[in-house]
Amino acid sequence: MTKNTLPSLYTCFSPALINLYDVSNSIVVIIDVLRATSTIATVLHNGAKAIVPVDSVAECIRLGKQIEAITAGERDGQVAEGLQHGNSPFEYPESFIKGKTLVLTTTNGTKLLHMALDRGAKEIITGSFPNLDAVCQHLIKMNKPVMLACAAWKDKINIEDTLFAGAVIDSVKTHFNIQCDSSQIAHTLYKTAKNDLYEFMKTHDASHYHRLTNFGLEKDIRYCLTPGGANVLPSYKDGKLLNFPI
Amino acid sequence: MTKNTLPSLYTCFSPALINLYDVSNSIVVIIDVLRATSTIATVLHNGAKAIVPVDSVAECIRLGKQIEAITAGERDGQVAEGLQHGNSPFEYPESFIKGKTLVLTTTNGTKLLHMALDRGAKEIITGSFPNLDAVCQHLIKMNKPVMLACAAWKDKINIEDTLFAGAVIDSVKTHFNIQCDSSQIAHTLYKTAKNDLYEFMKTHDASHYHRLTNFGLEKDIRYCLTPGGANVLPSYKDGKLLNFPI
Repeated sequence: MTKNTLPSLYTCFSPALINLYDVSNSIVVIIDVLRATSTIATVLHNGAKAIVPVDSVAECIRLGKQIEAITAGERDGQVAEGLQHGNSPFEYPESFIKGKTLVLTTTNGTKLLHMALDRGAKEIITGSFPNLDAVCQHLIKMNKPVMLACAAWKDKINIEDTLFAGAVIDSVKTHFNIQCDSSQIAHTLYKTAKNDLYEFMKTHDASHYHRLTNFGLEKDIRYCLTPGGANVLPSYKDGKLLNFPI
Repeated sequence: MTKNTLPSLYTCFSPALINLYDVSNSIVVIIDVLRATSTIATVLHNGAKAIVPVDSVAECIRLGKQIEAITAGERDGQVAEGLQHGNSPFEYPESFIKGKTLVLTTTNGTKLLHMALDRGAKEIITGSFPNLDAVCQHLIKMNKPVMLACAAWKDKINIEDTLFAGAVIDSVKTHFNIQCDSSQIAHTLYKTAKNDLYEFMKTHDASHYHRLTNFGLEKDIRYCLTPGGANVLPSYKDGKLLNFPI
């Protein structure tokens, strides 16, 4: 296949820019590395039945009661009042989460997922380093246009989501037509950082690195920057994220 | 001075993100490398009295008549209908432009300049590789908070404006407190590309590189990516860009 017959791949660094792109024919990969999409992959990898992402704490509490599910979500780094669990992947071992449903409220990731849905995305999956390979294999197999959509932090671009977009591009680039400056920037950043993503985050004053280390979450950060910990494909269907058979 | 007492420096990759930042106490550097701010520096370096940036072709024609100035601006890579000149820095040698006033309409750069103005920027200057040193010297001397504001392309992030932000950061970084992921991304990109910016643009499929080379403008691109060609400081005051004494 020549380059021009390959499907397109775009990267969007912030939810505030997603309206610049037509995603109606695309697979949208929601990326919220620290920590929403890393935790989503882990929860499904450890056998949860489903994850229901919701926008608000109030809706999380309401729905949790209604469907008798576990509720989870943080605001400003603490478990939100009225919810049972937080955003750390380590809160969800198989012994706890297997067979259960989790209602999860996150600020940046859930908002972006609903934006992609409103804009008619063909398919929505979530991506993080723990499930990097599953995402890349799926994108190559599907052979459809792709939008790598970074959740960012309150619309401000962050390093870790950009690094993950770059990691995907590094792996799938020969299968796509990539004429998108943001994708090139993400790929260059990843190639510079890939030998030690944790060290790169630390030495480059990544704002989220500081936010989380202030809460004592170095272990979470290391896990969320390491490929392979939870190699599943969370796929959004009818309001739920399910473990899609790879 | 310890890091925390230094003034802040932020980078904004797109006009669509500028509302996320408070620029009311900042020097805002408008960056539109290909080619608006490169041409602005060149026109002032070659002795023009002033440049009046305006939003629309109609306003450019109207004002050009009113103040008997030269009118310039392009739409889709061609001199806009009713205007006299285009966006190329090579259209404005000293023999032509000295002592004259230019009314210039650009899409991305002018829009961003007016946004910065509306948001109460303390000072607005324009930056490009031809006047990189003048910009950096001024920022260090002023010792005030800085916003590096990329004009982008119809709100989509581009490589060349990001590279210029990275070049400024590379030069001024010890004088500022930089806790901004976009700045770190721009700096990393610049360090990777700096040995040959032109080659980097070419091999990384930069969208604007292709847009301009399709118009036969390689010479413009090379000039616009080379530091030192027009080392002046265009500063915005009362509706005009003037050559501010360095």
